[in-house]
Amino acid sequence: MKGFMCFEKPAYVLSWAGCGGVKEAGGPLASGFDKLWNDNRLGKKTWEEAERELKLSACRIALQKAGRSAADVHLGGDLLNQCISSGYAARELGFPFLGLYGACSTMAESLLLGAALTSSGLAATTLCSASSHFCTAERQYRYPLAYGGQRSPTAQWTATAAGAVLLSGEKPPYGGIRIKRALVGRVFDPGVKDGANMGAAMAQSAYESLHTWFAVSGSRPEDYSLIVTGDLADVGKKIVVHMLSEEGTDITPVYDDCGLMLYHGLQDTHSGGSGCGCSAAVLCAYILPEMKRGLLKRVLFCGTGALLSPVSLWQGESIPGICHIVELEAEK
Amino acid sequence: MKGFMCFEKPAYVLSWAGCGGVKEAGGPLASGFDKLWNDNRLGKKTWEEAERELKLSACRIALQKAGRSAADVHLGGDLLNQCISSGYAARELGFPFLGLYGACSTMAESLLLGAALTSSGLAATTLCSASSHFCTAERQYRYPLAYGGQRSPTAQWTATAAGAVLLSGEKPPYGGIRIKRALVGRVFDPGVKDGANMGAAMAQSAYESLHTWFAVSGSRPEDYSLIVTGDLADVGKKIVVHMLSEEGTDITPVYDDCGLMLYHGLQDTHSGGSGCGCSAAVLCAYILPEMKRGLLKRVLFCGTGALLSPVSLWQGESIPGICHIVELEAEK
Repeated sequence: MKGFMCFEKPAYVLSWAGCGGVKEAGGPLASGFDKLWNDNRLGKKTWEEAERELKLSACRIALQKAGRSAADVHLGGDLLNQCISSGYAARELGFPFLGLYGACSTMAESLLLGAALTSSGLAATTLCSASSHFCTAERQYRYPLAYGGQRSPTAQWTATAAGAVLLSGEKPPYGGIRIKRALVGRVFDPGVKDGANMGAAMAQSAYESLHTWFAVSGSRPEDYSLIVTGDLADVGKKIVVHMLSEEGTDITPVYDDCGLMLYHGLQDTHSGGSGCGCSAAVLCAYILPEMKRGLLKRVLFCGTGALLSPVSLWQGESIPGICHIVELEAEK
Repeated sequence: MKGFMCFEKPAYVLSWAGCGGVKEAGGPLASGFDKLWNDNRLGKKTWEEAERELKLSACRIALQKAGRSAADVHLGGDLLNQCISSGYAARELGFPFLGLYGACSTMAESLLLGAALTSSGLAATTLCSASSHFCTAERQYRYPLAYGGQRSPTAQWTATAAGAVLLSGEKPPYGGIRIKRALVGRVFDPGVKDGANMGAAMAQSAYESLHTWFAVSGSRPEDYSLIVTGDLADVGKKIVVHMLSEEGTDITPVYDDCGLMLYHGLQDTHSGGSGCGCSAAVLCAYILPEMKRGLLKRVLFCGTGALLSPVSLWQGESIPGICHIVELEAEK
């Protein structure tokens, strides 16, 4: 099957780190983060510098935890034009860098390619990262924050967060977490033209990738401790559950969405969280720690991205979506 | 060495296609293109749609030449925010897609990752693509064209062009062209803050990657029929030649730059060509055809990217550069 990959030689998760801002510090996963700031500028002059600092911190802490100063290759991306958070972070880190753009699917894309490079022995270690910042993203994709525009009920809240995962061909000292299989997503476009309804734009891609996954992997929803999309939030989650149920697949017993896990209901995010930092942070502040503790055994991490472009929307185009899947398994 | 990759199992170039616009049709490589348009809108409503069409045409012609309707995975990128030319093209193509951002280094980045996936057997075929358009890039990075701003002498002309290369683990029927080795570049920043002087911003990265290549690969400049950067143009080419000569390495007998190959002197491009379509087009309209004809044996294709962001420049940042290297060899 096109895009389906089985990593026969191991790609192990060696270490990870999640960093977040003020809203993330007030959310249900706060205790799982490696570093949280009580100022969304992180003491920097601009939001863009703050996002870079978030990304850099996640990368450095992940490397530190594994006792390394560098990885063979860093694969990373973010939401900003020209992926500047990743590019400038790579300048500071100083080791080889490959820039990715997958919108909110970036963390899954980086894990997939990072696993491909380590599993094939082309790199001994790969650092996979993604980040986003509410203030940089709102300014770039929607309105200047100072304008004070009202957010619609379907809108998602871009996470001020970053995650970084260090992969290696060697099994780590504790029981390892392994990336076993992955699926490169296709681009689907259900015709949504509302930049404040990304859940609806991405839901079809999540459905198509999950449908393909169950068809080709031989696995069923009940084989997983957790199937997680990131980030469809409330609107998109309902659509994907409905689409899969129409063909008799019920994922609800093990299904959740990163956009609904990062914040709690009283945090006024409307449909839920988003931004490539959202699924990256949920992975690093909740999923991987729970796998290490033995509380989650097999996880299907489905990175969903809305390839939203303000210019394309102004020109009358709709928002295409994509969903890359990475299968994680905890080994004793 | 971090980032240095040796593809022991083959990654062969199965087919390729180069497409271009009006200026490219008037340049010295015109006869090598698969398709040229005499209208930079390609009959479309917007420049962005035109760029998408360029990219799509290159992808479709490359697939067609190999008698395929799809590849296992498409790895592609472009200069536009959110990589929309690639994202929308992937929507039309319909097979699995991984979005990349490496500015003008994107063609080399896609070949490197595409070779990694085919060589490791994780994908049977990969389609690697990059594109750019003068009008979309000028509007996004500098000034609206209608403003009629004067271009500085160091400015480069973004190519209206696209290239696509289909890679496979199988040797093609004619004598094969193989991707043998590659190097993932690091990000270097010599402190250039002038968005119209990208050659100077990228030259250090090209130097550092070439320096590393000669140190770790065991190869010398004289082992190559052609060492080609894309795109340093006149300003950057001189800097990289000077930096290498200072340590006793003379690449001049076999060295050229895509930005100087795509156009001729009377085409008023100032320093030369640029844009990820430039090196992609020179690869597909000149280098690969010459290798197939047996006129070039070993080529070092060095994709150089200026990670230029208008927002970062406005905030006082300088322009980081990156250079990924891919080694191509014609086999009988």
